[in-house]
Amino acid sequence: MAGGSGTRFWPASREHLPKQFLKITSDRTMLEETVVRIRQFAQLNQTYVVVGRIHAELTAQILSGSPAKILIEPTGRNTAACIGLAALSVKRLGEDEPIVVLPADHFIADVESFAQTVRSAAETARQGAIITLGVKPDRPETGYGYIHTGDEQGKSLGQPYFKVRRFVEKPDYQTALGYLSSGDYLWNSGIFVFTARTILEEIRVCLPALYDGLMEIEEAIGHANYQTVLDDVYPKLESISIDYGVMEKTAKPIYVFKTDFGWSDVGSWQALYELRSGECDAGGNLLLGDAMVVEAERNLVFSNADRKVALLGVEDLVVVDTPDVVMVARLDRSQDVKRFPELLKKA
Amino acid sequence: MAGGSGTRFWPASREHLPKQFLKITSDRTMLEETVVRIRQFAQLNQTYVVVGRIHAELTAQILSGSPAKILIEPTGRNTAACIGLAALSVKRLGEDEPIVVLPADHFIADVESFAQTVRSAAETARQGAIITLGVKPDRPETGYGYIHTGDEQGKSLGQPYFKVRRFVEKPDYQTALGYLSSGDYLWNSGIFVFTARTILEEIRVCLPALYDGLMEIEEAIGHANYQTVLDDVYPKLESISIDYGVMEKTAKPIYVFKTDFGWSDVGSWQALYELRSGECDAGGNLLLGDAMVVEAERNLVFSNADRKVALLGVEDLVVVDTPDVVMVARLDRSQDVKRFPELLKKA
Repeated sequence: MAGGSGTRFWPASREHLPKQFLKITSDRTMLEETVVRIRQFAQLNQTYVVVGRIHAELTAQILSGSPAKILIEPTGRNTAACIGLAALSVKRLGEDEPIVVLPADHFIADVESFAQTVRSAAETARQGAIITLGVKPDRPETGYGYIHTGDEQGKSLGQPYFKVRRFVEKPDYQTALGYLSSGDYLWNSGIFVFTARTILEEIRVCLPALYDGLMEIEEAIGHANYQTVLDDVYPKLESISIDYGVMEKTAKPIYVFKTDFGWSDVGSWQALYELRSGECDAGGNLLLGDAMVVEAERNLVFSNADRKVALLGVEDLVVVDTPDVVMVARLDRSQDVKRFPELLKKA
Repeated sequence: MAGGSGTRFWPASREHLPKQFLKITSDRTMLEETVVRIRQFAQLNQTYVVVGRIHAELTAQILSGSPAKILIEPTGRNTAACIGLAALSVKRLGEDEPIVVLPADHFIADVESFAQTVRSAAETARQGAIITLGVKPDRPETGYGYIHTGDEQGKSLGQPYFKVRRFVEKPDYQTALGYLSSGDYLWNSGIFVFTARTILEEIRVCLPALYDGLMEIEEAIGHANYQTVLDDVYPKLESISIDYGVMEKTAKPIYVFKTDFGWSDVGSWQALYELRSGECDAGGNLLLGDAMVVEAERNLVFSNADRKVALLGVEDLVVVDTPDVVMVARLDRSQDVKRFPELLKKA
């Protein structure tokens, strides 16, 4: 899923260049990192990258030389439609082969551990189960949704999996503290594993109108009118997340693997700073770009402009330099950078 | 005197673009502002702008259309040589006409009051006196030199003038507090008034080698070998300020006019912020350039690049955006911005 168009990394991220196309977690774009990760457990010619139309060309450039396939959404309709559309394609490879659903803009530290968990989850999914990966929290994070877990249901390739009791919204701080200490709550990673048969059946039950639309599209696959049908039907599909639309409604049990592979959805400049803190200089500055620092501490510099950034005496800032905008913000206010594109739209 | 090549406004000021060529105090360069001010009490065709060779072309562009004359120093040799060189030219207009020596990179708020004081000083200077303008301090400033004043010596055009007891160096804070409360100390503005005859005679007495060099140059004025002589002699002149070289050594009395016309040498980004604080937005931000501000206070933004500067949640910063460098500093550390060009030179 590479369809997001967030503004949380403004001004580096823009409508035409959302986070998954940025080189923020490494020298590669997050999309490339995701594709590299996939190679640990799947073949790229069986990989579908779902993107919005305005990002199709950029995606094709980034993936050029890779056998991964690109599915273009005429317009973004949230994750239920996106996953349904992909399931139609993957189904043709084998209706009972597991599908791994991965957001293209997440960070994973321990790729080997991640791949092992995916393999275990895939084995369980083959039996028809809906699987999600939950991440053991290491702090009372209020920026993530949580999964309330129940009893162990079995093991797959040596890894236990648990019943999902319910998905819960982003909590306030006190609630998050309680979740952390209880040990029964995991971060909802947004990574799912199921077969095409399973997820399409659940969409049929939980979101029948969306299912009907998908069926119209499926009928057109391989025919001359495919694009016309897609452009006609897809924009009318209900815009709902797979979490709300299916996971919280389905009567089917959902299983979760407890994982510990160093996951982050990299939701802000501050999250990026924390993620890459190991790369800081002696003053705790994370300098991603051409920077000079005099007596400055704990700052994040990100520059994709051909320009030098100089810091003097400042602390706890994020400085982002782009060809047309330079932003200076307090790092702990970086969740609010989206206010700038909002202001610009108003203007 | 437009020969300075400071780095106190780095990165806006560079070797090739020192402060007097920046539009920091208004929409005009400080050099233009100085020339506009001169028109209040002198004719521009009797005005000499002394600049370094690397700034000659830029100066000519800025002054194009003005009858002011440009004197090019082959290399900077401090203010005694600069004033001596100018005095040779002004002398030809009348040896006993007063010369007003003005740094091209100072700010003056009340131009009419300034012009009146200059006229008074000029009258006194005609009699052969050395005159300096002292500024009544309104704070215990440690960044300026001071003038210790003595008794009133007389009046000129209604304005009293006083004996200079001595020039004193930039004081520490406690000393500056004492100066402020005593009422006997003025800031040394670096503005002098004297005739060509007077200053050249004092240079002869106090700096005989420099005087000999000036006489060599004077002999060549109007001759084909002028440039050759200037290029040969000027770089060998002693590099010393008029303050050290003449004012602190001369046996002649020096008189000072106490002035109150809102003077600043605009010595740092912080000084500029204070100078133009009346132009701040409701949050106390002085935004000189294209800027967007969200919950940010008391920041100075200066941009001469075609780019937007966005501030979020930050306070007391100076952000300077130029085509090749963006600098973010604590405003109260802005006297240290010169460390960047030093670092770059080392590198």
